[in-house]
Amino acid sequence: MKRLYVGVDLGGTNVRSGLVDEDGTVLSRDTRKTLARESAEAPVKQIVDSITESVRAGGSSFSEIRGIGIGSPGPLDARKGKILRAGNLPHWINFPLTDIIKERVDVDTYLQNDANMFAFGEWWMGAGRGIDDFFVLTLGTGIGGGAVCGGKLLTGFNDNACEFGHTSIDYNGAQCWCGQKGCIELYSSATGIVRITLEELANEHIETSLSEYRTNPEGFNSHVLFKAAEAGDTFALSMFDKAGYLLGLALLNAHNLLNFKRVAIGGGLARSGELIFEPARRAFRDRGFQSFIHEVEIVPAEKPDDAAMLGAVRLVMEKEAGS
Amino acid sequence: MKRLYVGVDLGGTNVRSGLVDEDGTVLSRDTRKTLARESAEAPVKQIVDSITESVRAGGSSFSEIRGIGIGSPGPLDARKGKILRAGNLPHWINFPLTDIIKERVDVDTYLQNDANMFAFGEWWMGAGRGIDDFFVLTLGTGIGGGAVCGGKLLTGFNDNACEFGHTSIDYNGAQCWCGQKGCIELYSSATGIVRITLEELANEHIETSLSEYRTNPEGFNSHVLFKAAEAGDTFALSMFDKAGYLLGLALLNAHNLLNFKRVAIGGGLARSGELIFEPARRAFRDRGFQSFIHEVEIVPAEKPDDAAMLGAVRLVMEKEAGS
Repeated sequence: MKRLYVGVDLGGTNVRSGLVDEDGTVLSRDTRKTLARESAEAPVKQIVDSITESVRAGGSSFSEIRGIGIGSPGPLDARKGKILRAGNLPHWINFPLTDIIKERVDVDTYLQNDANMFAFGEWWMGAGRGIDDFFVLTLGTGIGGGAVCGGKLLTGFNDNACEFGHTSIDYNGAQCWCGQKGCIELYSSATGIVRITLEELANEHIETSLSEYRTNPEGFNSHVLFKAAEAGDTFALSMFDKAGYLLGLALLNAHNLLNFKRVAIGGGLARSGELIFEPARRAFRDRGFQSFIHEVEIVPAEKPDDAAMLGAVRLVMEKEAGS
Repeated sequence: MKRLYVGVDLGGTNVRSGLVDEDGTVLSRDTRKTLARESAEAPVKQIVDSITESVRAGGSSFSEIRGIGIGSPGPLDARKGKILRAGNLPHWINFPLTDIIKERVDVDTYLQNDANMFAFGEWWMGAGRGIDDFFVLTLGTGIGGGAVCGGKLLTGFNDNACEFGHTSIDYNGAQCWCGQKGCIELYSSATGIVRITLEELANEHIETSLSEYRTNPEGFNSHVLFKAAEAGDTFALSMFDKAGYLLGLALLNAHNLLNFKRVAIGGGLARSGELIFEPARRAFRDRGFQSFIHEVEIVPAEKPDDAAMLGAVRLVMEKEAGS
């Protein structure tokens, strides 16, 4: 009989959960709306309903579940199991999430940052299998990150490690909400690539199929840019090249500290594939330590949908093992 | 009877060793010239003579020593105990240092990067005591770094973690030998502060007691700059302010990844004290995450002379414990 766990990937839009065994096999999955804006209770009910359904659909019962792990947007206090204040969960302030879930289903519950859990899941069952020093970044509206160092999840003193989106590449660059200037999130996230494209479009000499957005940026987004690049628009291609190259430079900063063997990239913008990966790899080759930078791999995430949930399960397993 | 170890801090100029017990008490010390440029054998003999003297002066013998740890400049292969190629040890290329030392004194010998060992020693017996997430940087001719994350030394996949000097703060900045542009070593090391000062001095409108170096930079160095700043020269003060502030910004990049609770600064330029520390702390306050950056401390190293040696001993103790 294999040990059973429940993993939860809590987002502002959807909550996903799954029944997972100790080998990382997902036995069942459930996805439903988070209902984050309705009340403090609504997302709690959605989480409880989702994990109840996952356990039922997997043919198990809560008495058989060894623990529940939740990956959530932060900032949070993992040690106390509290959500401190998450932008897209507005009713939860200093919210004791793990205590509440445990009270409802009588199973020990643990909490960690979602990007860290994504990294942990990719390390356990995805692109990081067997790699002791592994890094993950997620390219979406923002940029998140997570790291496994020497086989251990990197959390930092207050669980705010791997805020990779706030690696600055230009101390005189654009102002970021975080306080720094020139953060990579301002250049290479879905929002960032739109921002730098609209800035460049202001130059009227640029020839591009996107010129209609020069005066009216409404309706312009990273998907529109992707479609133009796919159709061969030179300007659109150059914007992906810039975003990918700068991302590679920020990754090089991270690499010079963490010295990871492999980095996996997930998130919506990672679906742009080589448009992002090729220039990121080129930046590594151009500017990394030539003696070994060729040994470091930049690859797509392998389990983009399940990784955070799997990581949350792995977190519970590590807690169980007392590490 | 306490367990006994020998720690070695191998530099291009001096080799320092000490007999250290399991509590981190240094029972004896020896320092002698490295003789790095004479031959491949000369520094080996100096190391063996130094550790022999440390053991003797401490009233012990090699049969009582549980292991020898060596902190050395890199790049090196810690797992194989080899120096790959160190700039200031020119006769050692792919040099199997630990095997050779073990052959001479019949004690198990381990090797790690010197900045990592400095960090490990400060964590064990200095400014990092009791701090699970701790960072160290050394400000000298270059800038080195080392980190303890969750109570474990951060080494990375090939022991090149924490090349903090090669954190870029400006992707369009000056070219660094490492391949990147705008590395913090180019601004805030002893060499860097001299470089940016001479650049600024080219502006003839600047009033400063250092104007003689405008046309003849020979004889100008970080100590001359420090003396001018101490005497109240506004220009010299502003150069320290710039170097310290940029150092703080680079540290913030490192902090956003590693989320350390405390950073200790060592190395020759750290002796400039508040001239460097005040602007570095100001950069943290100005641009860090306001919700917790005030909890993160920037302090001087406590054991600048012994830390690398102590860290090397701690390394042996961890190997003994099988971690």
